[in-house]
Amino acid sequence: MAKVAIIGAGSIVFCKTLIQDILATKGLEGTEFALMAPSTHRTPYVESFVKRVIEANDLPAKVWLTTDSREAVKDADYVITTFQVGGIEGFEADYKIPLKHGIDQCIGDTLGPGGVFRALRSIPVMMDLAQDIEELAPNALVLQYVNPMAMLGWALGTTRVNFVGLCHGVQTTLDLISGYVDVPKAEIDYLCAGINHMGWFLKLLHNGKDLYPLLRERFELPGYYVNEKVRGEVFRHFGYFMTESTGHLAEYVPWFRKDQKALDLYCDEPGFGGASGAYYAWCEYVAGKYASGDILADEPLALPSRSVEYGSYIIEAIETGRTFKFNGNVRNGGMITNLPSDCCAEGPMYADGTGLHKTIVGDLPPQCASLNLTNINVQRLAVEAALTGDPEHIVHAVALDPLTSAVLTLKEIREMVTEMLEAESQWLPQFAGKSIRPTPTVSIPEDVKRAEVPIDPALAIFARFGKLAE
Amino acid sequence: MAKVAIIGAGSIVFCKTLIQDILATKGLEGTEFALMAPSTHRTPYVESFVKRVIEANDLPAKVWLTTDSREAVKDADYVITTFQVGGIEGFEADYKIPLKHGIDQCIGDTLGPGGVFRALRSIPVMMDLAQDIEELAPNALVLQYVNPMAMLGWALGTTRVNFVGLCHGVQTTLDLISGYVDVPKAEIDYLCAGINHMGWFLKLLHNGKDLYPLLRERFELPGYYVNEKVRGEVFRHFGYFMTESTGHLAEYVPWFRKDQKALDLYCDEPGFGGASGAYYAWCEYVAGKYASGDILADEPLALPSRSVEYGSYIIEAIETGRTFKFNGNVRNGGMITNLPSDCCAEGPMYADGTGLHKTIVGDLPPQCASLNLTNINVQRLAVEAALTGDPEHIVHAVALDPLTSAVLTLKEIREMVTEMLEAESQWLPQFAGKSIRPTPTVSIPEDVKRAEVPIDPALAIFARFGKLAE
Amino acid sequence: MAKVAIIGAGSIVFCKTLIQDILATKGLEGTEFALMAPSTHRTPYVESFVKRVIEANDLPAKVWLTTDSREAVKDADYVITTFQVGGIEGFEADYKIPLKHGIDQCIGDTLGPGGVFRALRSIPVMMDLAQDIEELAPNALVLQYVNPMAMLGWALGTTRVNFVGLCHGVQTTLDLISGYVDVPKAEIDYLCAGINHMGWFLKLLHNGKDLYPLLRERFELPGYYVNEKVRGEVFRHFGYFMTESTGHLAEYVPWFRKDQKALDLYCDEPGFGGASGAYYAWCEYVAGKYASGDILADEPLALPSRSVEYGSYIIEAIETGRTFKFNGNVRNGGMITNLPSDCCAEGPMYADGTGLHKTIVGDLPPQCASLNLTNINVQRLAVEAALTGDPEHIVHAVALDPLTSAVLTLKEIREMVTEMLEAESQWLPQFAGKSIRPTPTVSIPEDVKRAEVPIDPALAIFARFGKLAE
Amino acid sequence: MAKVAIIGAGSIVFCKTLIQDILATKGLEGTEFALMAPSTHRTPYVESFVKRVIEANDLPAKVWLTTDSREAVKDADYVITTFQVGGIEGFEADYKIPLKHGIDQCIGDTLGPGGVFRALRSIPVMMDLAQDIEELAPNALVLQYVNPMAMLGWALGTTRVNFVGLCHGVQTTLDLISGYVDVPKAEIDYLCAGINHMGWFLKLLHNGKDLYPLLRERFELPGYYVNEKVRGEVFRHFGYFMTESTGHLAEYVPWFRKDQKALDLYCDEPGFGGASGAYYAWCEYVAGKYASGDILADEPLALPSRSVEYGSYIIEAIETGRTFKFNGNVRNGGMITNLPSDCCAEGPMYADGTGLHKTIVGDLPPQCASLNLTNINVQRLAVEAALTGDPEHIVHAVALDPLTSAVLTLKEIREMVTEMLEAESQWLPQFAGKSIRPTPTVSIPEDVKRAEVPIDPALAIFARFGKLAE
Repeated sequence: MAKVAIIGAGSIVFCKTLIQDILATKGLEGTEFALMAPSTHRTPYVESFVKRVIEANDLPAKVWLTTDSREAVKDADYVITTFQVGGIEGFEADYKIPLKHGIDQCIGDTLGPGGVFRALRSIPVMMDLAQDIEELAPNALVLQYVNPMAMLGWALGTTRVNFVGLCHGVQTTLDLISGYVDVPKAEIDYLCAGINHMGWFLKLLHNGKDLYPLLRERFELPGYYVNEKVRGEVFRHFGYFMTESTGHLAEYVPWFRKDQKALDLYCDEPGFGGASGAYYAWCEYVAGKYASGDILADEPLALPSRSVEYGSYIIEAIETGRTFKFNGNVRNGGMITNLPSDCCAEGPMYADGTGLHKTIVGDLPPQCASLNLTNINVQRLAVEAALTGDPEHIVHAVALDPLTSAVLTLKEIREMVTEMLEAESQWLPQFAGKSIRPTPTVSIPEDVKRAEVPIDPALAIFARFGKLAE
Repeated sequence: MAKVAIIGAGSIVFCKTLIQDILATKGLEGTEFALMAPSTHRTPYVESFVKRVIEANDLPAKVWLTTDSREAVKDADYVITTFQVGGIEGFEADYKIPLKHGIDQCIGDTLGPGGVFRALRSIPVMMDLAQDIEELAPNALVLQYVNPMAMLGWALGTTRVNFVGLCHGVQTTLDLISGYVDVPKAEIDYLCAGINHMGWFLKLLHNGKDLYPLLRERFELPGYYVNEKVRGEVFRHFGYFMTESTGHLAEYVPWFRKDQKALDLYCDEPGFGGASGAYYAWCEYVAGKYASGDILADEPLALPSRSVEYGSYIIEAIETGRTFKFNGNVRNGGMITNLPSDCCAEGPMYADGTGLHKTIVGDLPPQCASLNLTNINVQRLAVEAALTGDPEHIVHAVALDPLTSAVLTLKEIREMVTEMLEAESQWLPQFAGKSIRPTPTVSIPEDVKRAEVPIDPALAIFARFGKLAE
Repeated sequence: MAKVAIIGAGSIVFCKTLIQDILATKGLEGTEFALMAPSTHRTPYVESFVKRVIEANDLPAKVWLTTDSREAVKDADYVITTFQVGGIEGFEADYKIPLKHGIDQCIGDTLGPGGVFRALRSIPVMMDLAQDIEELAPNALVLQYVNPMAMLGWALGTTRVNFVGLCHGVQTTLDLISGYVDVPKAEIDYLCAGINHMGWFLKLLHNGKDLYPLLRERFELPGYYVNEKVRGEVFRHFGYFMTESTGHLAEYVPWFRKDQKALDLYCDEPGFGGASGAYYAWCEYVAGKYASGDILADEPLALPSRSVEYGSYIIEAIETGRTFKFNGNVRNGGMITNLPSDCCAEGPMYADGTGLHKTIVGDLPPQCASLNLTNINVQRLAVEAALTGDPEHIVHAVALDPLTSAVLTLKEIREMVTEMLEAESQWLPQFAGKSIRPTPTVSIPEDVKRAEVPIDPALAIFARFGKLAE
Repeated sequence: MAKVAIIGAGSIVFCKTLIQDILATKGLEGTEFALMAPSTHRTPYVESFVKRVIEANDLPAKVWLTTDSREAVKDADYVITTFQVGGIEGFEADYKIPLKHGIDQCIGDTLGPGGVFRALRSIPVMMDLAQDIEELAPNALVLQYVNPMAMLGWALGTTRVNFVGLCHGVQTTLDLISGYVDVPKAEIDYLCAGINHMGWFLKLLHNGKDLYPLLRERFELPGYYVNEKVRGEVFRHFGYFMTESTGHLAEYVPWFRKDQKALDLYCDEPGFGGASGAYYAWCEYVAGKYASGDILADEPLALPSRSVEYGSYIIEAIETGRTFKFNGNVRNGGMITNLPSDCCAEGPMYADGTGLHKTIVGDLPPQCASLNLTNINVQRLAVEAALTGDPEHIVHAVALDPLTSAVLTLKEIREMVTEMLEAESQWLPQFAGKSIRPTPTVSIPEDVKRAEVPIDPALAIFARFGKLAE
């Protein structure tokens, strides 16, 4: 039977969901789970719970624990990655240092200073894992759940590992759309593509009829608009509905969180609707709760119906030959023809008995591609920094972040990044012994003697005209 | 002998320079010039001057005037484009309307609201000309001088016309570098590539020795830095020297003109060094002077030595077989491998007896490519707007302008663009009868009844965790 | 309800099958069929039969006849192409003229002189149709059944028409494989890709187990090998099973029909197993039968179960949103990454409520790609000839045909092509008034005076060495 | 001063020419030459000669000898490769075994069985050298002269080594063309591109006038045609003159050497004009002469004027900044847009102080590209065999050779390749312990019991029609 390694099994709730999904799938009842986390702080709770489930349901499955990721992945058929590097402490730096410098993040795990540093912490761990997989389980499929999805996927795309990044954003956005247009989700034919957290619904059809005119109409009404001001504005101005919610989306684009006026207009909902540090606050709260012991102790042992997570469906498709369609994150490689070939794109894919199959979406509408590209710009430089260990590229990545660049100068950005790099150095081995070049203000004395050079090029051109005109 | 059509011969000074260059070239003395402008306001001055030069130097050349561009291009070997659409009046709208809305441009002819609208005005004229050339002079080479270079080149790249966009920015920047490092220009081996007005000096060598360490050192000193604060900052933070001067560069990137603090720090030099509307003021001044009559009346008739403009050297190369190397603007098509294939890129080319030859530069350093891409994003959408006549794409283009997006909200951008479109409608036939969709503020009543939809996606995920943790 | 235009409705049996398939599909009972053929020689039989079927089964469908293809395609949702240009008379020239010149074809409709001329006859008709569709039914999907599939698809790929070329070769080959390895067809997971009539089974799995070792073993045994000597040889030497049967495959590759020895060894089965002109003989026989009257007169009116043809399943998928997986022929465009982007490739696709979706197969094994490329070479030149009307490209296409080039000299090929072009001129309007340049033998007189040129390059090099060695 | 390593310094005459060229170049007089060959059989003659030249001309150059290629390349600025693996003994197998099997080669070093095995012997040595260069001289430029050029270049293109493959074929062909059209070589403007030994003169101009009409006229006359029957035929039938001479070209294409009739018609000139084994015979003769001692002993010590070899001009361009234009062989990478990106293509390049620059040629005429692709097919599979050590790919490579496939069956090809692999095993370490799978004839007993399978696909289709027609 299939062997599934879960790397980052300390993500208790997510890990529980995926395992239950798999055990509830006909054809996968005999799966072997190898649970791996670097510490055994929480994983025994998961192992013990899964054992109780297996016994209670009389399944031929197996589960075991390890802190050795090589042991976990050896000969695995599937590797599920759900780890997080730096925990709440790393996240604190991701949120609080930028805030001090004027960058106000709501979620902070995808782009911007928070997303970039989360990637810098995670990519080295992911690359080590990839090397182990290339050696010990070269045919394994990696189901990748670690954020920031697009940067992690970009890094994985430079290896020979067979992977797909998975997110439920398309499904949950479709739930919303279904509500907004009053059509059952199952009856909506859709085509969605772009990058993770910025995917575009290119087609929304009901029995062949375009749902967009109705959706557009609705988003001019307060009762709909209030629910998602930022996504609503992007929809109104760029013409397509996309996969990210208001509080989070506000961070990837330059228009909504750059000053107090914008925040008041568009980001005034509480919590994930736009509040400063909403995700950090929530994580801090959960971390406290988890500290208290085995939160799975009293969970029911009966198998619930399968969740919307794609994981178990993909494994089912490959193991049983049943075709399954979903949106996955992979090295673009021609899937979306107006995004770079090497970036990590999100688009429609199929899984069946012969593996995973990307489809060719073609060109996105140009304005959608351009918005994606503002994010891909940052992703490329962050991945470059993570893989080469050149700290200058961290500065470049953050300097191109649409929100950060709307708020700070280059010098201020460099200082913020320098402070973050120092604060998070324990999780950033690739930058050990390196530092960001300081760029102090060059003070100009009143009586500065200017270098003798030909007249400034722009002036030179015009001087020719000017002389004549005199 | 070769026939050269000059479309936009009302650009008196530039036209005079190019013609003198050609007449001063051995092998091109017998060139026939067809001077075309839609009016005969100023062109008779040019024709008359050229006739005097021909006679005074006893050359076998010919010159004649027309207002019919089809007559001008028929069977031409070379077509030189130097026209401007909308004149000082169009430029006034390009500068003053954005300023009113908070966008402070120094030059305003390349990107941003000013550059976008200049492209919208010029592209229809250029496309009509291209169609005439395809029909009447299919083998002609177009030497394209109209700004915004990159957008015009992008549009031309969709036709079958053989063209190259020419600018002296690489040469004049090299003059400066020569001064900064105290090495004669002729002794510097260089490789420069990117997009027009944002080309990167990838190599700067003197007898095989890298000149960059010295140049970097110099730019930490006030006497050098003061000369180009913005270019200096971009150099310090991104590592490469580029082809645009401070006042102009400040407009294409988000960090230097977005608020008063930034303006004071980086754009405090007078005129083209950073002042608001510097180029507009200059053009207004020149227009006044030109109005007074034939400014060429007293120009000397002896042929001066050839200018640095590439035009006459390219024609010489093709006509005489002498190899000439220069930086040209063309449909990228694989020249710079990490910029889009369809954009207009600027890179090293060669002209010889068999025509023009692009070279393959390969990848730019990622941070340089990313900066170029922030501009290419805008260019693509502006060209899309100009070619399709969809006014929404004008909004998209300006909304992605790095400077504009750092200052305004989407709603404010849309209002600014709407006002510009109305003010310039006489030069924008492709948008006749179309208007930009209004997006009024959606006011939320205090007691708004929210659409019933599933819980927000981001919240939904976390709710699963939260319940457990309680 | 959906409107389906069938262009070439004189293909009685095929037309009948497709219509019955559609009428037998839940959700498509109300389809409107427009039957078009340039003459009404046979189509009334089809119309009358379909009317009887509709009535007998009490369906809301409609059917009508026209000789005007513009009327047929106007506002059509689907256009099915099944026409043939030149009929048995054209086919006679395709087979008999090459035979006279030494090229012995068994089927003669896909590559080689027969396939090239079939394409030259069909492409002009297809391009006219495509223009009508672009104008009158721009959203229609074309289900293309005309051979030669790859060349027709290549030509269509230069238009804006949405099309897919359909063939049952993958399905029928899978039937054979199923028999060869004793595994039910439905249980085989497979991945097949390449070009039409030369698709490669890249994966053949049964419950995750590779079926290739068994298939290889079997093809060393006479009882299996005898069934398909040519396909068997290609399988043994190149390692992959493909979608073409022996008699036909023998024509696309150089090794099996070039001389009598090869024919005796590999092409000694009767009929489609390798006999000379097998398909032509069969068509001649059928044409005679058809001439006798309404062969549909006594056909049963009850709807049979659906055939294996993909057509009705694709329409069902789009109209009802049910996902359907199949192998289609489309402009490659990145589907198979080591075949040219502009060729017509055959690979796995999906149809659903949002349309057709190509998947990305990646690289074929290099030897498979290389074999495909020998055919693509010919296709490209034949399509170039058909679209430009340059008869020299016909010579180029046939000169590169693997079988023809193994048998004839360039001069002989040119003479054969010249004779075919004359014989088929009535169906080749694009070459009207043009002729193939003659290349008579250049006779060398005994006392020829050789042009004085430097010593032959190869000799020149070595002469330098030789002199020393002396 | 620059350090030049010559790997394969036993190629006495070629080595002498390159060194004299460099020493005769202003700016390169102080070059240091490291001469490397695995034995010191002949290299001391070269070293001693060069020392005498240095002394006689009072140059600041240095020369020394080594058998250690790592010592030779360490910190080299240029590495020149001129080695040959297997010597006359390997060449004997390349020529005589194919001849026995019916493949009659004239030169036998570029494609076909001889070219493939020459590549198999050379690529491992080249890849070891490349690894040393990556480690010890990462900035070195490799000037590659080893044949088969295209396959060696393809293999080098998979490394990080900066290289260019050099051949004089373009120059020497231009000498011929100059003679054929009576225009001095220096006055011909040309554009030539394709692959090594099959480059196409795309433009031939004299003062802007196309020289092709005259050249075409001449090749219908016996006095011109007789000089190059095969190149003449390819020119007459495909429309472009190319860079390979008759005897050699006859081997790469299927039409001229496949049987006695073709040989008599087109390959009846002596020696390199078409004779069997002409190059082998010449090499055997030279090898005998060389065995007699120091053939350089009496060479004059004065520096002759520079030869037409590109080597010294490229080094001069890089060291002194003087632009030099030539045709080089490099990883295609977009240079010729209708040839594969990863193949080794030959096209116009420029060298200057910043290095080498490929130009973008665009698409070749389709018939020229197709001819190149028939060779590239073989090259790809041969390189794949050499790099992976999979002996099946040798069979695939030779099976696709246009000449071989026109003469032999797959079984015969496999037997020939098997014999060659055994005979040359001492120079083919990558295939040690591996052998080519035998494919004995599958004898069909008279009473063979055929596997029960559905009717053959092609038959199945038609049976449906046939039944009706009965």
